[in-house]
Amino acid sequence: MKSTTVLTPCPNYIGGDWLTVSDVATTPVHNPSTGDIIAETPMCTPQHVEAAVNAAHAAYPGWWETPPTERARIFFKFKMLLEENFEALAQMVTREHGKTLVESRGDVRRGIEMVEFACGIPSLLMGDILENVARGIDCDAMRQPLGVCVGITPFNFPAMVPLWMYPVALVCGNTFVLKPSEKVPLTAIRIAELLEQSGLPKGVLNIVHGGRDCVDALLKHPKVKAISFVGSTPVAKQIFEIGTKHGKRVQSNGGAKNYILLMPDADVENSVRGVTEAAFGCAGERCMAGSTAIVVGDAAKTVLPTLAEVTRKIQVGPTDRSPQPHMGPVITKQHRDRVCELVDAGIKEGAKVLADGRNVKVDSAPNGFFVGATLLDEVQSSMTVMREEIFGPVLSVMRMDDLNQAIEVANRSAFGNGASIFTRSGKAAREFKHRVKAGMVGINIGVPASMPWFPFNGWDDSFFGDLHMQGKEGVQFFTQLKVTTSRWFSYGEGDIWHREGNR
Amino acid sequence: MKSTTVLTPCPNYIGGDWLTVSDVATTPVHNPSTGDIIAETPMCTPQHVEAAVNAAHAAYPGWWETPPTERARIFFKFKMLLEENFEALAQMVTREHGKTLVESRGDVRRGIEMVEFACGIPSLLMGDILENVARGIDCDAMRQPLGVCVGITPFNFPAMVPLWMYPVALVCGNTFVLKPSEKVPLTAIRIAELLEQSGLPKGVLNIVHGGRDCVDALLKHPKVKAISFVGSTPVAKQIFEIGTKHGKRVQSNGGAKNYILLMPDADVENSVRGVTEAAFGCAGERCMAGSTAIVVGDAAKTVLPTLAEVTRKIQVGPTDRSPQPHMGPVITKQHRDRVCELVDAGIKEGAKVLADGRNVKVDSAPNGFFVGATLLDEVQSSMTVMREEIFGPVLSVMRMDDLNQAIEVANRSAFGNGASIFTRSGKAAREFKHRVKAGMVGINIGVPASMPWFPFNGWDDSFFGDLHMQGKEGVQFFTQLKVTTSRWFSYGEGDIWHREGNR
Amino acid sequence: MKSTTVLTPCPNYIGGDWLTVSDVATTPVHNPSTGDIIAETPMCTPQHVEAAVNAAHAAYPGWWETPPTERARIFFKFKMLLEENFEALAQMVTREHGKTLVESRGDVRRGIEMVEFACGIPSLLMGDILENVARGIDCDAMRQPLGVCVGITPFNFPAMVPLWMYPVALVCGNTFVLKPSEKVPLTAIRIAELLEQSGLPKGVLNIVHGGRDCVDALLKHPKVKAISFVGSTPVAKQIFEIGTKHGKRVQSNGGAKNYILLMPDADVENSVRGVTEAAFGCAGERCMAGSTAIVVGDAAKTVLPTLAEVTRKIQVGPTDRSPQPHMGPVITKQHRDRVCELVDAGIKEGAKVLADGRNVKVDSAPNGFFVGATLLDEVQSSMTVMREEIFGPVLSVMRMDDLNQAIEVANRSAFGNGASIFTRSGKAAREFKHRVKAGMVGINIGVPASMPWFPFNGWDDSFFGDLHMQGKEGVQFFTQLKVTTSRWFSYGEGDIWHREGNR
Amino acid sequence: MKSTTVLTPCPNYIGGDWLTVSDVATTPVHNPSTGDIIAETPMCTPQHVEAAVNAAHAAYPGWWETPPTERARIFFKFKMLLEENFEALAQMVTREHGKTLVESRGDVRRGIEMVEFACGIPSLLMGDILENVARGIDCDAMRQPLGVCVGITPFNFPAMVPLWMYPVALVCGNTFVLKPSEKVPLTAIRIAELLEQSGLPKGVLNIVHGGRDCVDALLKHPKVKAISFVGSTPVAKQIFEIGTKHGKRVQSNGGAKNYILLMPDADVENSVRGVTEAAFGCAGERCMAGSTAIVVGDAAKTVLPTLAEVTRKIQVGPTDRSPQPHMGPVITKQHRDRVCELVDAGIKEGAKVLADGRNVKVDSAPNGFFVGATLLDEVQSSMTVMREEIFGPVLSVMRMDDLNQAIEVANRSAFGNGASIFTRSGKAAREFKHRVKAGMVGINIGVPASMPWFPFNGWDDSFFGDLHMQGKEGVQFFTQLKVTTSRWFSYGEGDIWHREGNR
Repeated sequence: MKSTTVLTPCPNYIGGDWLTVSDVATTPVHNPSTGDIIAETPMCTPQHVEAAVNAAHAAYPGWWETPPTERARIFFKFKMLLEENFEALAQMVTREHGKTLVESRGDVRRGIEMVEFACGIPSLLMGDILENVARGIDCDAMRQPLGVCVGITPFNFPAMVPLWMYPVALVCGNTFVLKPSEKVPLTAIRIAELLEQSGLPKGVLNIVHGGRDCVDALLKHPKVKAISFVGSTPVAKQIFEIGTKHGKRVQSNGGAKNYILLMPDADVENSVRGVTEAAFGCAGERCMAGSTAIVVGDAAKTVLPTLAEVTRKIQVGPTDRSPQPHMGPVITKQHRDRVCELVDAGIKEGAKVLADGRNVKVDSAPNGFFVGATLLDEVQSSMTVMREEIFGPVLSVMRMDDLNQAIEVANRSAFGNGASIFTRSGKAAREFKHRVKAGMVGINIGVPASMPWFPFNGWDDSFFGDLHMQGKEGVQFFTQLKVTTSRWFSYGEGDIWHREGNR
Repeated sequence: MKSTTVLTPCPNYIGGDWLTVSDVATTPVHNPSTGDIIAETPMCTPQHVEAAVNAAHAAYPGWWETPPTERARIFFKFKMLLEENFEALAQMVTREHGKTLVESRGDVRRGIEMVEFACGIPSLLMGDILENVARGIDCDAMRQPLGVCVGITPFNFPAMVPLWMYPVALVCGNTFVLKPSEKVPLTAIRIAELLEQSGLPKGVLNIVHGGRDCVDALLKHPKVKAISFVGSTPVAKQIFEIGTKHGKRVQSNGGAKNYILLMPDADVENSVRGVTEAAFGCAGERCMAGSTAIVVGDAAKTVLPTLAEVTRKIQVGPTDRSPQPHMGPVITKQHRDRVCELVDAGIKEGAKVLADGRNVKVDSAPNGFFVGATLLDEVQSSMTVMREEIFGPVLSVMRMDDLNQAIEVANRSAFGNGASIFTRSGKAAREFKHRVKAGMVGINIGVPASMPWFPFNGWDDSFFGDLHMQGKEGVQFFTQLKVTTSRWFSYGEGDIWHREGNR
Repeated sequence: MKSTTVLTPCPNYIGGDWLTVSDVATTPVHNPSTGDIIAETPMCTPQHVEAAVNAAHAAYPGWWETPPTERARIFFKFKMLLEENFEALAQMVTREHGKTLVESRGDVRRGIEMVEFACGIPSLLMGDILENVARGIDCDAMRQPLGVCVGITPFNFPAMVPLWMYPVALVCGNTFVLKPSEKVPLTAIRIAELLEQSGLPKGVLNIVHGGRDCVDALLKHPKVKAISFVGSTPVAKQIFEIGTKHGKRVQSNGGAKNYILLMPDADVENSVRGVTEAAFGCAGERCMAGSTAIVVGDAAKTVLPTLAEVTRKIQVGPTDRSPQPHMGPVITKQHRDRVCELVDAGIKEGAKVLADGRNVKVDSAPNGFFVGATLLDEVQSSMTVMREEIFGPVLSVMRMDDLNQAIEVANRSAFGNGASIFTRSGKAAREFKHRVKAGMVGINIGVPASMPWFPFNGWDDSFFGDLHMQGKEGVQFFTQLKVTTSRWFSYGEGDIWHREGNR
Repeated sequence: MKSTTVLTPCPNYIGGDWLTVSDVATTPVHNPSTGDIIAETPMCTPQHVEAAVNAAHAAYPGWWETPPTERARIFFKFKMLLEENFEALAQMVTREHGKTLVESRGDVRRGIEMVEFACGIPSLLMGDILENVARGIDCDAMRQPLGVCVGITPFNFPAMVPLWMYPVALVCGNTFVLKPSEKVPLTAIRIAELLEQSGLPKGVLNIVHGGRDCVDALLKHPKVKAISFVGSTPVAKQIFEIGTKHGKRVQSNGGAKNYILLMPDADVENSVRGVTEAAFGCAGERCMAGSTAIVVGDAAKTVLPTLAEVTRKIQVGPTDRSPQPHMGPVITKQHRDRVCELVDAGIKEGAKVLADGRNVKVDSAPNGFFVGATLLDEVQSSMTVMREEIFGPVLSVMRMDDLNQAIEVANRSAFGNGASIFTRSGKAAREFKHRVKAGMVGINIGVPASMPWFPFNGWDDSFFGDLHMQGKEGVQFFTQLKVTTSRWFSYGEGDIWHREGNR
């Protein structure tokens, strides 16, 4: 794949210095709309990791002793700089990831919301206190930071996912090393520049680029106390295992197969809009993608035809120019091929194609990594498309007779990120909410991703760890309680009470 | 008192318009350093109040329906504008109030901290939910705003006190009418301009100037739901009574007499610094002023001599120019005279003067309202200076034999804002903290005013109401829970579960 | 009215002694099923109040210093004794109040649930702590009890309402004086005996009987710190005003007019059951009674006919024997007459009677205070039955065209206890919940009284104060925060760190 | 070792049945005071585990749907039965474990406190709710139970440790399988009988006895959702790894080396009492044992001599009779030998013996497993006694020059359960609390084990997992949040609002 553009630099950020890395292997960063290479990510070595962790470790004592409100104050500044650079950041996301500008704006906006949340953390850092737990004995539990924390982030939300992690970690008093996806390092770099401009002391945030070697070194480094990870389920599980084995606290988000139930009484227009947005938004490359629609009873007649019609009208195309398409490319050529092969397999196993995006042609961008919106009907649990996470613009339709059966099918999934229902019935919604095995439930909402004030709440194979990102659990993850029990006997030198024989 | 300067305008702010008020009586605003009149505050009528409340009432439905995070977002902008105007605001405070620039910066800084706190309120707005409180029955308690809220603020913290109130009220979803002190309206106006620039919708915040008539109209207006007040105890009590009688929720801060215990084992240098700052900071015009030092046992020998020496070195002078004095004027000529008369009375009743600020001369500003730092020794509980709040730079010293006796004396006070102890003993600190009757306790801290994340926590006659300003109680004050208990029987139109006879 | 039964004694309980009061006026306690006098309540004087408050005041220091878990432990014992005496207590309630045994069991059960809640209070007493609020400065906020608290309770829930109050107050560390309703003092006495048996130290709970003089003395006593009241709105308002004027914290529950919306899609059987239970349970003598049904649109056809039919079948009769009727008598003859007069007025003003309970005859208990279940249709807001709280078995029906109009009518009420909707629509429920002006909302629940873990949450004229009974607010009401800010300078005598010049 | 006593039965408890297990290997249960065998614990097989897990799994749906308050109610009953059997349970603990009766009472009392805590869990099960997170969109987070949970408990607190686990798990709505220590199964059985008597439904709690095979089967069983473990650090780490690898949530408490700092200004009498209690209580067999005293500066002169004197006076002897000794035996003969060997090694490596318990003779109980209280002075970090957890009555003394040095030595430990300081200085206490790396800190408290309302809060190698036992973290461990985002479009069948065109 040729590159005619000037490559964007991709430096590490260590101890407050932006360091160009040479003499290591690199991974190309593409503009997926065109296939062009726009940067080269250095595949850093354990030595680079060592430097980054040491910088974070050196910065920790001073940062810890900085009062929480002073730490937060830097993030107020950061939030403003993010707003000022909002549109440029969205374009940067679109350029290296390929999603539409509207989607990129959402990516950046969700990231900013996490920064806003982080600004309010001092209220959430409070611990508990109770006097006289026994006569004359008091007890309290304060929250203290952990030390050096690490974030390892995926390609699909270049702005948001890093911002899930370090704003919370840092306001809690930790220092941080970020390893962004080697496929989309540029947005992460630009955002870190803005945080630097906001007045963050040197070494509090560090960035090191690379792949598996880097990750391994981070997971095993004795000075690292905690790991936040977002990626696919097999890797997430491994990250959790290696990290915890080496004594680190780990929160590790994996993939998902999210179900959307369409009840016969669902509002057709709104539910079709909700389902298509869930299935095809960001070209299906998100762990909250609604990849399976369960059509219950007569919904096959009332909702499904419109769903097929709307899917077929979704335009795919390059996102780095005007006019914007409905949907952009997937992240790489390899990934495009894999998505198409999974669709092939589904058809071979008996699924019916209501919309087929496999052979989409985009004349204006012949080298882009495009797959069109694809709708498979009559899908069964046993098919490959149901067993594997496709992470592309493919929506599978299953048909069920009633709500009970639909919930049971959804609950058989090993994953547990999201599950939604479209209905007008309060009863159906309550039963679904109560019984469905998923950590994030949507009622007439296609993508029930939590707001930053609530945990991003995967269950089962969608999450490894006990404490999720976002919300109060996020703050808990990046802190540990210290419980103190105290009693005082005598007054010391100036003992002018005891003398009196009082009490 | 002559005015040679151009008067600063003092408009109302109603429904998003800045309205000059004419044909009403006015109250002069002075520069207390010079005695010059710098503005004229219009003494508005109930008609103006009516307009302001109606504007707030009209803006309420739209503001309530604005999501909390969107409401908070305006305050992120506001915080940045306050930072950008920080020095100018401090100068404005000094000009209309007279405190030193260092103190004015503190005033503005504490106000900004409240805005920072308010930005984090979405996390604190969460209510509770519990499913299956009985079989199939769920219960939740959401926080909803109250409607139109009112703030009535005193002269002593022109920036901070209004910012204790409306940022919290507004992010919680209420709309607001502020009546600033007629003695210091200018800072409040300027800060509201900055909030307007931050994008606050019209009518969400309103300002009306005036005196007792205005207050009365606000207290009784049927559309007003809540009143926040800060002032002297007699007025605070009255505000509470009238407000609650008219069905409003009220939080009403009054005055105080705050005690500082100096133990024989106290660190001399630090405790003298703490006590003098507490007593003479802001010329003693604050409800957290440390107006009484209880010298325990040998502290009379170890700490008191240094305290007297330091007090006598405190320079008073004009604050509107360089170089800055240690202490500025009090707010009005009348107040200066009252402070001096209280000192006279104290001496007449037997107190000994260790430092006398009654006849201080300031050549560079002969018309300023100056009282020098005053230290009275051998003060008794029965003296006038102990029974009344002086609100000036006067520190009374009582001598006690032991800690127990000192706590008992402090606990006899009708007030309950602050109480501090200086000691090195963990035991003495614990006993003091456990037993002293004050809502804000200081250990080796002269002015134990709470940070915004904790309530500003007066007890007894220092506060009327149940829910204090600042912190989680502040959020509770400006919201009400709504408890919902729900159960669902049948599925409605699309009843495809029931049909199956499941569960 | 003759009494052939032996009168049950009605002693005060002061400082751990059960004291028979003679030479004061008395008020008769009736068995409302028969009209018989079963006890005489002494109308105690301020002297009795003085003794009770002093006993509580004397017991306070020791009780406060008792660790919360030890205080709670007594209530675990109490809970067990209440269970063991469950049926006897229910019979006692029925005997002095007249409600059915089923309802009396509910009354006792709800009281026990409050005791269960109180046993868990140690977890809820925790305050907040945050270290390094500024460099080297820590802050915490502990919860401390208030001192002597007072409860004044109504006739309608002889077991439950006193148990709303003192279990919470006591586990929080306060001591208490209870003045039960002079109409139903016996259950309160019996329950206090059980608490005494559980090991409560003398003076921690006290009971004094009486009327207005007693209440006045309690409201104004300088040693009393807080008042809990449940009664009618005019008295509740007065209690709040007098109590707060005298420096006490007050929570004061008044009356209500609670609306129940019946939507056309409501499940007929369940909604009729819900509405009739809400309207006629406890003979309508409860502040959560559903006294107005708003029939929306076609619900007039689908639900109303069944409602009328069911109402007409409700049997009223004596509750002190078998078989039990559906509904018992009202509390007094006077009250019966007042209820009937209000119905008369309603009819005169144009309401149509669908069921008429005014002239009910109960042959087996000719002197009981009976009113039959009464259903008035086509009631208008302006009618007397809508403006006044009837507190009897009378259900008014209003007809509205749509949900919006129904909510607006309900929101015009000055009261704000409860409001319910019966529907199958998630949308209708959400809009109702969001917009209705009531503190307790029911969705397909006729009586949305909160469980003890949630506040009993009246709004507007149904509650005076900021902090409700039950739940976390209940604990807040009976405690006050104390905020401590601390810093430490030097080590004192054993200063072996400083010497090293470390930090 | 001969057994002349009748063996106490040791049945499994599965699905509500007490099942005697035959034809498996057994492990002897001793009375450590006499060396007699008092029972034989069956070493159950994976088949028994299968039965227990299946019983728990079958009981889960019904138990989950039981409202939290109903679940808690059973534990109120349980608490009362534990109180009634208090003394008998203490004797049972002493008989199978060997600790003194006073210590056994503490063991049972702490267990009962956990049950008391569990009774209050409904308040702690509440999740969060926030309406209008976006326009018309509401969000909530409910707490739901996990399913089948497992507890694996050690020998040292036969009553308390199982009660750390299942009361919390069960009130949260889970079902449970307990595998008690094969060395002390009898108390656990008896306590479960009491819970059965309290009305717990069949299968909600199950007990299976055994060793490593059992544990393995539990850790890997697909129906098990969570594991609570308490034991030694190497096993705790392994349990965590295997459990999490198999998709379970795990909290796993390991061992510790807890430091106690003795400052020169410490109160001698109280600190010696605190240290000896910490070191020799329960014969040192607890993870909160204070095994190392760091004597700072002159404390070597002021405190150490008394410490040595008191240690030498500690009497060891049989605990199963009167009079009670100060200290009982260790758990087994093997363990006694290991403790003595560690002391030997310490002496060989240079420690000085101030009190020597290796060759203690107890004439009244010649076959008991006794070690006397042992005090080693001049211990260094590098010695075996400092690197390994001794879990016996051995106190090592290190000498340091100042507080800073002492904290640094303590912080080098790989463990992080407890650390205490004895001092009169507020400054020293604050610095220690702030900086020491331990999850439970004591100030003038030898054994800073948390009360049930606070987490039992090990750090580093003393705990594997994120959420500790006890307190709010305990509740979090046994539940998972479910976050629901909801929106409603149209009203459904009874759409009488929309028709009006409102909003």
